[in-house]
Amino acid sequence: MEERGNISIHTENIFPIIKKFLYSDHEIFLRELVSNAVDATQKMKRLSSIGEYKGDLGELKVVVKVDKDARTITISDNGIGMTAEEIKKYINQIAFSGAAEFVERYKDAGEQNQIIGQFGLGFYSAFMVADRVEIVTKSYKDETESAHWTCDGSTEFAIAPAHKEDRGTNVILNVASDSEEFLETARIRTILDKYCKFLPIPVEFEGEIINNPNPIWTKQPSELTDEDYKNFYKELYPFSEAPLFWIHLNVDYPFNLTGILYFPKLKNDFEIQRNKIQLYSRQVFITDEVKDVVPEFLMLLHGVIDSPDIPLNVSRSFLQADSSVKKINTYITKKVADKLNEIFKKDRTAFETSWEDINVFVKYGMLSDDKFYEKAKDFVLLQNTEGKYYTLEEYKTQAQANQTDKNGQLVLLYTSDADKQHSFVEAAQNRAYDVLKLDSVIDSHFIGMLEQKLEKTTLKRVDSETIDKLVEKDETKESVLNDTEKEDLKKIYETAINNQNMKVEVAPMSPDDAPVIITLPEFMRRMKDMSKAGGGGMMFMGNMPDTYNVTINANHSINQRILKAKDDNKERIARQAFDLALLSQNMLSGSALTAFVKRSVDLIDKE
Amino acid sequence: MEERGNISIHTENIFPIIKKFLYSDHEIFLRELVSNAVDATQKMKRLSSIGEYKGDLGELKVVVKVDKDARTITISDNGIGMTAEEIKKYINQIAFSGAAEFVERYKDAGEQNQIIGQFGLGFYSAFMVADRVEIVTKSYKDETESAHWTCDGSTEFAIAPAHKEDRGTNVILNVASDSEEFLETARIRTILDKYCKFLPIPVEFEGEIINNPNPIWTKQPSELTDEDYKNFYKELYPFSEAPLFWIHLNVDYPFNLTGILYFPKLKNDFEIQRNKIQLYSRQVFITDEVKDVVPEFLMLLHGVIDSPDIPLNVSRSFLQADSSVKKINTYITKKVADKLNEIFKKDRTAFETSWEDINVFVKYGMLSDDKFYEKAKDFVLLQNTEGKYYTLEEYKTQAQANQTDKNGQLVLLYTSDADKQHSFVEAAQNRAYDVLKLDSVIDSHFIGMLEQKLEKTTLKRVDSETIDKLVEKDETKESVLNDTEKEDLKKIYETAINNQNMKVEVAPMSPDDAPVIITLPEFMRRMKDMSKAGGGGMMFMGNMPDTYNVTINANHSINQRILKAKDDNKERIARQAFDLALLSQNMLSGSALTAFVKRSVDLIDKE
Repeated sequence: MEERGNISIHTENIFPIIKKFLYSDHEIFLRELVSNAVDATQKMKRLSSIGEYKGDLGELKVVVKVDKDARTITISDNGIGMTAEEIKKYINQIAFSGAAEFVERYKDAGEQNQIIGQFGLGFYSAFMVADRVEIVTKSYKDETESAHWTCDGSTEFAIAPAHKEDRGTNVILNVASDSEEFLETARIRTILDKYCKFLPIPVEFEGEIINNPNPIWTKQPSELTDEDYKNFYKELYPFSEAPLFWIHLNVDYPFNLTGILYFPKLKNDFEIQRNKIQLYSRQVFITDEVKDVVPEFLMLLHGVIDSPDIPLNVSRSFLQADSSVKKINTYITKKVADKLNEIFKKDRTAFETSWEDINVFVKYGMLSDDKFYEKAKDFVLLQNTEGKYYTLEEYKTQAQANQTDKNGQLVLLYTSDADKQHSFVEAAQNRAYDVLKLDSVIDSHFIGMLEQKLEKTTLKRVDSETIDKLVEKDETKESVLNDTEKEDLKKIYETAINNQNMKVEVAPMSPDDAPVIITLPEFMRRMKDMSKAGGGGMMFMGNMPDTYNVTINANHSINQRILKAKDDNKERIARQAFDLALLSQNMLSGSALTAFVKRSVDLIDKE
Repeated sequence: MEERGNISIHTENIFPIIKKFLYSDHEIFLRELVSNAVDATQKMKRLSSIGEYKGDLGELKVVVKVDKDARTITISDNGIGMTAEEIKKYINQIAFSGAAEFVERYKDAGEQNQIIGQFGLGFYSAFMVADRVEIVTKSYKDETESAHWTCDGSTEFAIAPAHKEDRGTNVILNVASDSEEFLETARIRTILDKYCKFLPIPVEFEGEIINNPNPIWTKQPSELTDEDYKNFYKELYPFSEAPLFWIHLNVDYPFNLTGILYFPKLKNDFEIQRNKIQLYSRQVFITDEVKDVVPEFLMLLHGVIDSPDIPLNVSRSFLQADSSVKKINTYITKKVADKLNEIFKKDRTAFETSWEDINVFVKYGMLSDDKFYEKAKDFVLLQNTEGKYYTLEEYKTQAQANQTDKNGQLVLLYTSDADKQHSFVEAAQNRAYDVLKLDSVIDSHFIGMLEQKLEKTTLKRVDSETIDKLVEKDETKESVLNDTEKEDLKKIYETAINNQNMKVEVAPMSPDDAPVIITLPEFMRRMKDMSKAGGGGMMFMGNMPDTYNVTINANHSINQRILKAKDDNKERIARQAFDLALLSQNMLSGSALTAFVKRSVDLIDKE
């Protein structure tokens, strides 16, 4: 008693869904229709090349016209055209892709991929802007009648004979009143410029060819000079500085992808530089949001990717899961790593000169992709405060002798702000320690990664300990002060500072070191940084006050003077010495700074 | 000879489009199926209430079950059920909305809006996760057979009699191997919690009712206490602090909208606070991306909006143009302005206490919406450095006497950082000027707007001029130095400073003012700020060095001493005085700061 049947779709209901849902931007209609016209023209070329058409091809091109008075936009081609029967078959039956059938039929002729065949439903996007659409068309086949099709956006259509003499198709949009913007030639030119700039057949608008049918990414790298690549970059980004270098992508298997990726001069405008990669499918511009096609860390690259294998018009979560997209991702990552390695090996000076611009890519890539780390660990560079560059291996080797502590741990020192931490950098350099510049946003993560990957190696910020403790050696400094004096000095400072978050300690240091040094321990600072960045489970740290270590240099003459000074002078001098330490750490501000400045003015005045 | 016909859709081609394109998240299938079940149950209630059904309704509910061994998810309801004929009509014909027909038929019974009727295509989302879907159903109508429908995701289906005794429908999903995640009860619970938390019929999962069928936004404000609103806020955001206040939205015409918007305690985590408004359609959760429904400046609010009039599943550009959405936008803006005004009038102390949290809303709103400006100009507050609040009118009145310059212009002073600009704030206060705190990101725009809207009023940052020039009066200060001495002093400082971007000038000031004062003119600073923010056409300014004015106080004793000092001491003292001015402006850093600190240590040591 079981019954079987077929699910059917009621056209009246599905039609508005196609119109509204498939395209988020109304301007897409022009991309779809011009692509269809290019498609019809390319099919003509193919038929001629395999001998199915013997006549004259003529000058193949697509013409776009706007007639503001008639309120029409017309897209004309001299491609294969259609007979009345074909219109019924291809246009009247939505989603029955004409291109699919064509490809099927001629696939033995090879290169069927060149046919733009994605846009089965594309024609209907015309109704997003037009309230009536007409097709006037004549097939390339001998002795066929031309036809005139009209539809007002409902599911009813009319078809009648026409009087078209030449082969090809004109699509005429009678623009709806809510879409008048598309009757402005400036608007149409902008849309053509965005989507059709590199279509493979000449496209004419207002008497000019608006596209470059043979963009360099469709050519072989061997045919191209550096100048070609630079000129193409200028064509894509007219107001940008020349790129640092580029990668020509060209792969057939297991997916089809061509393109050129440029490393731009980044400067600091990270955000402005995003979304500069343009995604094409067979030379039709699709989007500049390539977030899921290109690995996140390469989003700052510029250029063009062209692949018929990237699914279009689908949702982001779908794209992320797509296996072609994953392969493309892996491929691009590998190509970028290989290119960087090649430049590093061929021309280290050029590589170092570009480092400021490319270090974010490289570090981000190492952090987010283990395979990239493995390739990049040999060419990632560290720069010290003197501007010299080292690879990881080179740097470890040169720091080994002087910066290995008593436990055999190699201590690499860095500054996150050579200007603000100047006095600490200077102190380290006086001890012949080398100090790295690790000052970009990504460096705090990079530091954590280095410690995980490099054995027996720690990184410390120069102001996290007093100079003697940064790289702890098996040496003890003599103290000029005895224990009672030290205790007295500690109490004087504690009273003068009067702040529970300043942990005072007296220690013997060189008489040439500062009298008072304020440090924030590395571990504490990292926890707080993580907490600020919203790191897991660390939120409570954000609310804790910073607890600083205040180290009083027992061997500095000022501190010996303080012990000998008159009672009411002890604290005054200690406070002034402490304020100077605060100043060195950029921690003196507000009323404390104003008061300090006034005291100092008085001091000069009385000099 | 014209021919007419109908456009037809080939089902084999459109079906994958429905499956892939309409929903970006696969988890949506559960929302769709549970909504359908709730829908069927509510229809039952309606039929009973209008007397079309005389039998026992029973306990109406929807049950969701996961059977990991059988690899099925079952959604059951005791709603109206379907006959075999109805299955053919409603399920087999996609997009023929059963709900639409039901509403049409019973619309005279009123309240048809309560029927969840959006999801005509929703049923088919089941195929995103299942490779076979079954329906077992029995209609509420007496003496009808139960039916069992099966479909494997192709367009073929089978239908056979079943042995279901009770009224209602079971939808059984045989989960596909690539969707096994949905066989985890924890996953299903998360999805139910996200989409079904406030559905109007009880939904049972693992023996528990997981929803609150009567959320407070569906009730009248008169039925609710403050406690109810606060509890609901806790229900929505379990880990948040209590809200400041709230607005109950409730409008029938010209669109249907209910909801509750909360003003949260913002602190500084702006970004984390975004996307906290949840959008519902008849108690079904739709999204928390309400970007185009709520005015941009109110995106930081929290809460719930429920409206069947907001188009779902459509593209963003379409949403922006939708007229209901525009009206909703305007309505919400007005309600927020009215609520703020009400609190300001009723309880100014509470309003002032909340100001830190709400000032960003208010200022952003005034900047982006003229209608909001007109309402908000009476309750927007200015806070001075002493923490006192004023309305615009109040503040202008109190500043009038002392801060009107010789041209009759009212000069309002502000600081963008009371700590960093402390010495300047102090100088202004010593002259009995009032200083406003305008230190948030939005304040630079807010300042510009105030100057445009308020007549004869200028705003100046306290460090943009020396104290005498901030509010220029018709007074001339006597100078202790004659013109030659001034010229000499200028040259000494110029040599000591040795920096072309420091424009030195000697002017008579009070002997109690600082010996050297560094200022950055208001206009210059604003241009540079605009340029940094990427303002139009100002890019070139970003690359210009800051040009500061250095004013030497002719009447300060230090400067008289410099003129009398020995040659090699002149410049040394001038440099120290200049460094102290740099310090006051937080401009002394790096090696210059380290050198300054060392000189100062020596100075104490020699004291």
